[in-house]
Amino acid sequence: MARIRLQDVAERAGVSIKTVSNVVNGKGTITPATRERVQQALADLQYRPNVAARHLRRGASGMIAVALPELTQPYFAEVASELVRAAKARHLTVLLAQTDGLAESERAISDGLDMPLMDGLVMSPLALTAEDLRHRLDSTPIVLLGEHVGIDSPFPHVAIDNRRAARTATAHLAQIGRRRIAAIGAKRTDGPNATPAETAELRLDGYRAGLADAGLPWRDELVAAVADFHRADGASAMHRLLDLAEPPDAVFCFNDLLALGALRALRDRGLTAPDDVAVIGIDDIEEGRFSTPSLSTVAPDKRAIAETAIDLLMSLRGTAEPSPVHAVAGHRLVARESTTGPGGPP
Amino acid sequence: MARIRLQDVAERAGVSIKTVSNVVNGKGTITPATRERVQQALADLQYRPNVAARHLRRGASGMIAVALPELTQPYFAEVASELVRAAKARHLTVLLAQTDGLAESERAISDGLDMPLMDGLVMSPLALTAEDLRHRLDSTPIVLLGEHVGIDSPFPHVAIDNRRAARTATAHLAQIGRRRIAAIGAKRTDGPNATPAETAELRLDGYRAGLADAGLPWRDELVAAVADFHRADGASAMHRLLDLAEPPDAVFCFNDLLALGALRALRDRGLTAPDDVAVIGIDDIEEGRFSTPSLSTVAPDKRAIAETAIDLLMSLRGTAEPSPVHAVAGHRLVARESTTGPGGPP
Repeated sequence: MARIRLQDVAERAGVSIKTVSNVVNGKGTITPATRERVQQALADLQYRPNVAARHLRRGASGMIAVALPELTQPYFAEVASELVRAAKARHLTVLLAQTDGLAESERAISDGLDMPLMDGLVMSPLALTAEDLRHRLDSTPIVLLGEHVGIDSPFPHVAIDNRRAARTATAHLAQIGRRRIAAIGAKRTDGPNATPAETAELRLDGYRAGLADAGLPWRDELVAAVADFHRADGASAMHRLLDLAEPPDAVFCFNDLLALGALRALRDRGLTAPDDVAVIGIDDIEEGRFSTPSLSTVAPDKRAIAETAIDLLMSLRGTAEPSPVHAVAGHRLVARESTTGPGGPP
Repeated sequence: MARIRLQDVAERAGVSIKTVSNVVNGKGTITPATRERVQQALADLQYRPNVAARHLRRGASGMIAVALPELTQPYFAEVASELVRAAKARHLTVLLAQTDGLAESERAISDGLDMPLMDGLVMSPLALTAEDLRHRLDSTPIVLLGEHVGIDSPFPHVAIDNRRAARTATAHLAQIGRRRIAAIGAKRTDGPNATPAETAELRLDGYRAGLADAGLPWRDELVAAVADFHRADGASAMHRLLDLAEPPDAVFCFNDLLALGALRALRDRGLTAPDDVAVIGIDDIEEGRFSTPSLSTVAPDKRAIAETAIDLLMSLRGTAEPSPVHAVAGHRLVARESTTGPGGPP
């Protein structure tokens, strides 16, 4: 079928080409009756705007891509929502891609093969290395999120201070008087999963520092490794810790989903948090504000992460050699029932 | 800056244009050393594949768009993940857009203005009407999800039998012996929110039928309206029901997030589910499998919804006049602790 031209639509509707163009592009003032007539003609002829050609002409699409590992991880869904909001405030539309943390998906996207006509890309890679990204087959501006490609990044990147966040969480458990503080989230494998090994290492490092701050000894048996950062991994790790001859009296989980799984495991044993075991996570996902007990956590400033990422992306427009800026977003302790009980902070 | 051509890259790398093309398109057999040299030249020259031109030539991009109201609603995140999976099995890449249920966003996407080069669109509209969609400025194949544009739809659409699902949930509460069964989720407004008024109406209708099945009277005071289908709405509605002179002994919430908020409100009053009030939702989001108590629910077959939507979309390729197929995906009752207690079904 030959491509329908604006002229064909104009003839059918009995209006000028200019009027059709105004309707299609949402410009000018058009009476409802005329608009209706043009829309009918567009529909009758199945006119499809030649968006690709238009964008090639303009050079900017007003669209950016965001590539995240897993949208069913509430943390990523919440960051995605903040990115959509931050982009919208700058008149940009976001299209999201889920990579499942797979190298082939990450490469396809960072090479632009799956992303035509995008003005930029915000990506949280899990598989690709700094070296992979240095050789990407695409010059679309890119900003990275998270720790997997960290200070080695050839591109700007945004993260929180994970070591400090973990130290804060551990210090909170010591401050409420706990002495056998376990950690759930050391990485068992480097396979595809929703949190990179680098994040787990930094958080383990912060846990170690938090124990030292409180004069508590490191105990290997209190560090539980997991394959993924999902609820089920947290539940099974908690069960293993409860099977110890001397179980922990507190547990720092490397994200909120692990912590929510740990709470579930306590319930399955007839135990409660914080009376038997105090529990804290990281992420401040909405679920933890409504869980029973509500979940103490360290809250990354997700809005700042999103705003900074979009601002950095925009600053790259027309830049040949991006400077590898390393932006650090803030975080804060949020103490809830799972560490302080239903009565609030002691 | 003039566009970099494959020839420029070939000259710099000292290889043939064919070799550069093979590297860029991931074809042929190339030694690691040659590949490295070509990649370096591509990077040095900031070569960007002319994807738009390539797609215009091919006529199909292998990409489909999925437009959903809110990705922070776990139900939509889980459906999105199933759509990504179903599309991938058919060698299609999914790009997701969040509409926030706003007419302007839905229109921009259904008109294709924000979606260049897409082979198709799967959309869950909340604001646009069947009439709006009939006049969209785009002939990209489209498949609709949910009830907002239902049997009036000019396009194929996929949904569950909401009335029946709600009747099943209500029947379950009657079957475990409850007599004052409340409903949370009647719609207070038609403003933008994550579940259309149509869904709420069908579920209210099913609740009414379920009460009648059990020989229980309809009581206005036991029907709680909400503005949105979020956790906070469920919590405040539950508080209102508990303030009644005669509070309910069970509550059917029109989605799982409302039910999780209701569980939180019970805990805030020192009450428990199911002992004081049995609670059931709809959606079967993962969160409800790990909550305390775990949440009884009616589970829509999300995988079938996704598979059917993608199959319908593919069947529309090259079809001028889509037949308005109305596909119904299955659902099943999942009884957990919030209705049957920690001991399992009675």
